[in-house]
Amino acid sequence: MSSQELLVNSEKGYVPASERIPPIALPYVSERAKKTLDIVERFVEEECIPADPIFMQQLGEGVQARFSAHPPILEELKAKASKLGLWNMFLPKGHFKEGAGFSNLEYGLMAEYLGKSRIASEACNCSAPDTGNMEVLAKYGTEAQKRRWLDPLLRGEIRSAFLMTEPQVASSDATNIEMSIVRQGDEWVLNGQKWWSSGAGDPRCQIYIVMGKSDPTNASAYAQQSVILVPANTPGITIHRMLSVMGYDDAPHGHGHISFENVRVPAANIVLGPGRGFEVIQGRLGPGRIHHAMRSIGAAERALEWFLARMNDPRKKPFGQLLSAHGIMLDRVARSRIDIDAARLSVLNAAVKMDLVGAKKALKEIAEVKVLVPATALRVIDAAIQAYGGAGVSQETPLAYMYALGRTMRIVDGPDEVHCLQLGRNENKRGAALKARIEAQLKKTDSLFEAKGLKKIDPMALNRSTGKAKL
Amino acid sequence: MSSQELLVNSEKGYVPASERIPPIALPYVSERAKKTLDIVERFVEEECIPADPIFMQQLGEGVQARFSAHPPILEELKAKASKLGLWNMFLPKGHFKEGAGFSNLEYGLMAEYLGKSRIASEACNCSAPDTGNMEVLAKYGTEAQKRRWLDPLLRGEIRSAFLMTEPQVASSDATNIEMSIVRQGDEWVLNGQKWWSSGAGDPRCQIYIVMGKSDPTNASAYAQQSVILVPANTPGITIHRMLSVMGYDDAPHGHGHISFENVRVPAANIVLGPGRGFEVIQGRLGPGRIHHAMRSIGAAERALEWFLARMNDPRKKPFGQLLSAHGIMLDRVARSRIDIDAARLSVLNAAVKMDLVGAKKALKEIAEVKVLVPATALRVIDAAIQAYGGAGVSQETPLAYMYALGRTMRIVDGPDEVHCLQLGRNENKRGAALKARIEAQLKKTDSLFEAKGLKKIDPMALNRSTGKAKL
Amino acid sequence: MSSQELLVNSEKGYVPASERIPPIALPYVSERAKKTLDIVERFVEEECIPADPIFMQQLGEGVQARFSAHPPILEELKAKASKLGLWNMFLPKGHFKEGAGFSNLEYGLMAEYLGKSRIASEACNCSAPDTGNMEVLAKYGTEAQKRRWLDPLLRGEIRSAFLMTEPQVASSDATNIEMSIVRQGDEWVLNGQKWWSSGAGDPRCQIYIVMGKSDPTNASAYAQQSVILVPANTPGITIHRMLSVMGYDDAPHGHGHISFENVRVPAANIVLGPGRGFEVIQGRLGPGRIHHAMRSIGAAERALEWFLARMNDPRKKPFGQLLSAHGIMLDRVARSRIDIDAARLSVLNAAVKMDLVGAKKALKEIAEVKVLVPATALRVIDAAIQAYGGAGVSQETPLAYMYALGRTMRIVDGPDEVHCLQLGRNENKRGAALKARIEAQLKKTDSLFEAKGLKKIDPMALNRSTGKAKL
Amino acid sequence: MSSQELLVNSEKGYVPASERIPPIALPYVSERAKKTLDIVERFVEEECIPADPIFMQQLGEGVQARFSAHPPILEELKAKASKLGLWNMFLPKGHFKEGAGFSNLEYGLMAEYLGKSRIASEACNCSAPDTGNMEVLAKYGTEAQKRRWLDPLLRGEIRSAFLMTEPQVASSDATNIEMSIVRQGDEWVLNGQKWWSSGAGDPRCQIYIVMGKSDPTNASAYAQQSVILVPANTPGITIHRMLSVMGYDDAPHGHGHISFENVRVPAANIVLGPGRGFEVIQGRLGPGRIHHAMRSIGAAERALEWFLARMNDPRKKPFGQLLSAHGIMLDRVARSRIDIDAARLSVLNAAVKMDLVGAKKALKEIAEVKVLVPATALRVIDAAIQAYGGAGVSQETPLAYMYALGRTMRIVDGPDEVHCLQLGRNENKRGAALKARIEAQLKKTDSLFEAKGLKKIDPMALNRSTGKAKL
Repeated sequence: MSSQELLVNSEKGYVPASERIPPIALPYVSERAKKTLDIVERFVEEECIPADPIFMQQLGEGVQARFSAHPPILEELKAKASKLGLWNMFLPKGHFKEGAGFSNLEYGLMAEYLGKSRIASEACNCSAPDTGNMEVLAKYGTEAQKRRWLDPLLRGEIRSAFLMTEPQVASSDATNIEMSIVRQGDEWVLNGQKWWSSGAGDPRCQIYIVMGKSDPTNASAYAQQSVILVPANTPGITIHRMLSVMGYDDAPHGHGHISFENVRVPAANIVLGPGRGFEVIQGRLGPGRIHHAMRSIGAAERALEWFLARMNDPRKKPFGQLLSAHGIMLDRVARSRIDIDAARLSVLNAAVKMDLVGAKKALKEIAEVKVLVPATALRVIDAAIQAYGGAGVSQETPLAYMYALGRTMRIVDGPDEVHCLQLGRNENKRGAALKARIEAQLKKTDSLFEAKGLKKIDPMALNRSTGKAKL
Repeated sequence: MSSQELLVNSEKGYVPASERIPPIALPYVSERAKKTLDIVERFVEEECIPADPIFMQQLGEGVQARFSAHPPILEELKAKASKLGLWNMFLPKGHFKEGAGFSNLEYGLMAEYLGKSRIASEACNCSAPDTGNMEVLAKYGTEAQKRRWLDPLLRGEIRSAFLMTEPQVASSDATNIEMSIVRQGDEWVLNGQKWWSSGAGDPRCQIYIVMGKSDPTNASAYAQQSVILVPANTPGITIHRMLSVMGYDDAPHGHGHISFENVRVPAANIVLGPGRGFEVIQGRLGPGRIHHAMRSIGAAERALEWFLARMNDPRKKPFGQLLSAHGIMLDRVARSRIDIDAARLSVLNAAVKMDLVGAKKALKEIAEVKVLVPATALRVIDAAIQAYGGAGVSQETPLAYMYALGRTMRIVDGPDEVHCLQLGRNENKRGAALKARIEAQLKKTDSLFEAKGLKKIDPMALNRSTGKAKL
Repeated sequence: MSSQELLVNSEKGYVPASERIPPIALPYVSERAKKTLDIVERFVEEECIPADPIFMQQLGEGVQARFSAHPPILEELKAKASKLGLWNMFLPKGHFKEGAGFSNLEYGLMAEYLGKSRIASEACNCSAPDTGNMEVLAKYGTEAQKRRWLDPLLRGEIRSAFLMTEPQVASSDATNIEMSIVRQGDEWVLNGQKWWSSGAGDPRCQIYIVMGKSDPTNASAYAQQSVILVPANTPGITIHRMLSVMGYDDAPHGHGHISFENVRVPAANIVLGPGRGFEVIQGRLGPGRIHHAMRSIGAAERALEWFLARMNDPRKKPFGQLLSAHGIMLDRVARSRIDIDAARLSVLNAAVKMDLVGAKKALKEIAEVKVLVPATALRVIDAAIQAYGGAGVSQETPLAYMYALGRTMRIVDGPDEVHCLQLGRNENKRGAALKARIEAQLKKTDSLFEAKGLKKIDPMALNRSTGKAKL
Repeated sequence: MSSQELLVNSEKGYVPASERIPPIALPYVSERAKKTLDIVERFVEEECIPADPIFMQQLGEGVQARFSAHPPILEELKAKASKLGLWNMFLPKGHFKEGAGFSNLEYGLMAEYLGKSRIASEACNCSAPDTGNMEVLAKYGTEAQKRRWLDPLLRGEIRSAFLMTEPQVASSDATNIEMSIVRQGDEWVLNGQKWWSSGAGDPRCQIYIVMGKSDPTNASAYAQQSVILVPANTPGITIHRMLSVMGYDDAPHGHGHISFENVRVPAANIVLGPGRGFEVIQGRLGPGRIHHAMRSIGAAERALEWFLARMNDPRKKPFGQLLSAHGIMLDRVARSRIDIDAARLSVLNAAVKMDLVGAKKALKEIAEVKVLVPATALRVIDAAIQAYGGAGVSQETPLAYMYALGRTMRIVDGPDEVHCLQLGRNENKRGAALKARIEAQLKKTDSLFEAKGLKKIDPMALNRSTGKAKL
């Protein structure tokens, strides 16, 4: 690394990322992954974070400019990342020959650091929704599709979007998706609208992966849905506007509100086959949620770092004392530390499970972190904002934007409540067996009383009885 | 196992404990530990939990009776446990030849199940404060002390107490401890009082490990304190009363308020040597906190099991629906699941760290779980209580007692706030380096602006300026 | 007041209760009520609180003793209270000639102080469930019933219980109540069981007001239920046991689990008439919830007082500083103050509304405080417990018992969740109108755009459109 | 009102604001205020809210445009408001002849409705910081100052800013303010920088009220500070940039970062006199905090209205049911209702106290609402956002902006923590007296034991004593 070497040479007491891996995870981390992890950390801290404001400035001002921009700094970082071997680390080993050969756990550790910078994920070609889209294409794409879309995505030349959510329905329940996909001869014709089409704002976005209803009368609500590939420049597509996130536009990536009017694509563009939409999206979701979660952990860590920096700012002495002398601040730091560490372990455990038995069997663990991590990150970031006062909500710190991003994480891929409902129902399946177990235990207690010749008396029994009753 | 075989043969879909170990912990768990774990689970669920009410009944009524009781059921269970090989599992392998040969992580997994029953820990000779006291004796005791106290403790024949907290000072800061220990000839003479002397109520309690001030003028507040062995029947000792815990007396174990008036013990009874009290107690605390934490996890799991059982009770249908049809109940179940799982991983990681590098280097992780776990368990238990309504706060369920026990865990071994203060200060040590890092990053950003010939303009700059200022 | 005059003469800066009434409530408080309020405060602080431990000691030990006790100190205090004019203040003026002539708001202010002592409410003949039962008898009783039961209750000679909750059903939905009430000739015959029969433990309890099903096939679930008067000594009644509350027995009052086996009472004992049970209990609930809530406010205030006392205990200096020098303690005090004050205003406002338009039209306000106040009190008490460490959970302070009592308040008269469900549904009735309003506002916005010749463009619109769509 | 009459004629079951005043507040509200309140409500709902998007559109795009804009819709609304008599309602009666003659409580009720719209406050000439600045000028200004600045402000012709916070110090402690104010001949010369200069972005802003240090060596940190009037176009002033609030620019009002370089104003521009800065700002803060708080209550109410509308949107049916059929949503609505109502009562009580005894004596109540209300509003808004999913964080609803605004309220006028510290310290002043009271109560208990010939025995005493100790 040619740069200032902020961490290794300058920072007193610096301990590299690989030595801060929670010990319980160590047996699952290869030496190669540790080495890469340390490179990732330094790349993020020394190259990406300092470049974030350059990226912001190169975006320019105004909607048109910002959503046409392709900041040169990004390509420079991509070149550096590629040279450092930091490229496509997200593609899990064993499944994809195109990836860097890491497990989900190993990449998860790296994703934490990527999450500290606005641009680091893309610099390593590991940014959503491309990651999930590449997985879909790699898993389910035809050879032709792979050549046309996957290869340039893997090289970081184009970008992609995933179009699922629709404004007019409760998309948190994906069976509600309405986008019409009708077969006409050799083509599929799409009509409808989508929003929260993240990434669609980028001028380099060339391919949409679209979910819609191809078989609206199928008895199975699931079999009604298909996933289909739609080139971004297909006639009939209109981007109406970009949605803001707590005031931020996320340019050039963005979150599009898009309409489809008689949009036609070749029959071959359907993924896996008609009616297999749920199969496609379910295969896509597990790793993505782990990535989001670990990046959120990284954001929380960075917020805590800024918090700690503020606490030691000698210019900021309310009531004559450094913030670090105020017990309530130390308490918040401690609770942030505790919560982040617990959340990280949850994600790492989910990643390990996914590595060991696949995403389907790790659904519970994945759902848990989907709910736990954003809430945790938001608490930490909010505490850091509060420590900064006005600076915390403004452009002066990265905190407000991190909060906005974190807030959407409670909604992206389904709101917390949907996941909790599912988790609760799943847990509730144990209910009948547990009820039976408790009853068996109570019955055994009864027989113990009998066996020991003890009369079972509630210690609070009141011998004022004048009669007897069957309870 | 001779009993009803509640779990294995009767329970539909039963999955043994060893198969529910979080996958991330698996590499640290031996096959032997897994087998023992499954035996522990069955012993607790099939033998101990059903026997809990027998134990309660055998205690009798009234303070005098309850604190003289030695319920026969306990000795029966101890015999069973011993036969099953479930004895002294807490003594960590490598350190003590007397133990069962498990790591802290392995025993932690078992302790979770022990924590589901009121009497299981003692049935396996793994109950506090004997565990910590045995560690002290094994580590620091002379051979004579070991023969006299450690051996019968290891065999479960006697019990012990640890006397640290004092009513008249803020004992959360142990340098405040005032119990006077004065050398007179061949003896040490103790004067003062202690409370929260847990275990002192048991008629089988024969030895007190006492902290006190032997060198009150020493410049180091730490070196003022010593730990000394005091037989429970030494003249001058008075148990004034037993402290209740949210209304519970925890008989016969109990929490004593005890005074010492010219209590004399031989000079040799000092542990490690005068002024080494802090060394002794610090060595004692790490594993104990892990044990407490894992038992609390077990309590939380049991509360959740009762919660789930209630949700499926067909007699309990507010507004015509099973509780399990009420979304808010499912939501609480889900959040309980999430929180317990994250808390467990935190404890397991702390245990692994303790196994790998020792308790001293795992202080941060241990403090984290000390704070996190009781708060988590209390939330879960409270939710279960609420689901049960009146039954939840009464003797009808194990929940109210579990809540009381859990509540004290936020105080035992120092209140949350003390641990958070310590954690916060520890974390704050990174503050200066992080401040420097952030400043270096900002500086690098400046040089990037310069290098690229960009003028660094805040995107929100307002060119209404009429002058110029040095900011 | 003959006693030490703890407050007026000894306490520096003491401000009497009447001068601490929230100013917004003042117009509703008569001068006479203010005078009485100050007497109540002094009676509680100077007489009742110091007598609480006497009461506890006079109860004795053991279930049989405690539930047969009638501590003499109570009758002494009743005599004092009566002399001071502090008697039956709960009976709202205008409705009952027998009361002291105060409004619900005025009595509410007094109830706060009663709630600070374990025995003050009963000392003033203002304790539940007698208060609600007296209201029922005064409102709906026949003259004969009034003479037999109401008069001695008003004089504080006997006590009463209200038997609604049943162990085998979800009683939070009162239509589930199953106690069978069958007409046989001139009698009603009762069969079934009740629990949480609060007050039934007292040996002076002579009358049960019982809810049960007299018309099980009535199409209206509400009309199935009746309320009936049952003398406590009627044959066929068995008190099986007293329920504990987080380990406390609440003796001699207690919470009974009672069975009815062919319990016969005269036909005339039905209240208001068969099928009018809901009418009776609904008339009873409003004031009782206000009383509970204000007493809980008093408990929270007392907890905060103990908290503040601890913060200034010179013997308790963790890390060399008084607790009051620790910012996190001051923060908790502040938040306790804020929350208590807001909760009190909510109760006072509900009381005013009840005074102005009756309990039925104040259901929303009453439900709000039913949920808000216990949660608030528990937070405050829990913070005080934590400040005290071990002393906080033990018999050394009044805090643990206050916590236990407060915890049941989240369940008594229906769990929070039931009230929130009802409140939520009630609020949701506005949903359609609000939806219409918002749509009308959006439509008006459209017409404003048109009127002003403005094209309605989303500021984030992206003019990359190649087509057009109907959104 | 000429418009659509959204509320009165169209909305089923509409109840005007005056009839929804909490009953406890009614005695303090004049008939005239009730009438005005209803007009305010309709003006906001029927005129301002529909015009909010017009205002947004008329602002245009880009920093320069937005901070030069003066949307015509605002002047139209000001004309309407003025005609309706809705002008300067904030100036409290009794103190200022220029106002509309309402009490702080009465205006508080109105401010709630103003807080529902982005532009309603300014439309009624009741927007911060002009309100506080007008109070300062009216209270402390010379006649000449009043003519030059107060009169046009009262007429809504110009705007003003209050410059206190500085980026380089912990401004939450105002004694830290560093802006240098030096006397040179007939002038004061200012040097330094300010930020969070709210309102400074508006092109109509003509006057800054600036706090700074005129006597840096004064022994009293308070007497060092002065407040001075600085015309916005004075040479030497530079607006460097506008600060964003969670991504929003709040144009044209804005929050400026401004530098002063040798800015000269006449000697007469000092307010009240040198060294009296704290006197000036303290007089200014009370009413402003009430206004902020009540507007936040209005924002929370509007968020709840949107929440309820969403719950009844027939197009949004996750899992086949309206959101309003999901218990967890109803629960959140209920808790929102409870919390808003309690918070409103707190503000109204603080306003009443301020009306009765002045802001200085109402500091506690004002500080309480300063902390309570924003936290409450944020919880409600956050719940509404979550119900909306993606729409909630985007420009599709008013919720995200309301959240951003609410978040800053936890910082504006000092962060929560500073107010809690102050509140806690203030409350702690009672500590010594309370400690003495509790000790006196315990002593009285002792003498009661003695008087009754009772031996004071802890019910948990264990008579195993072999000796005696002085406890």
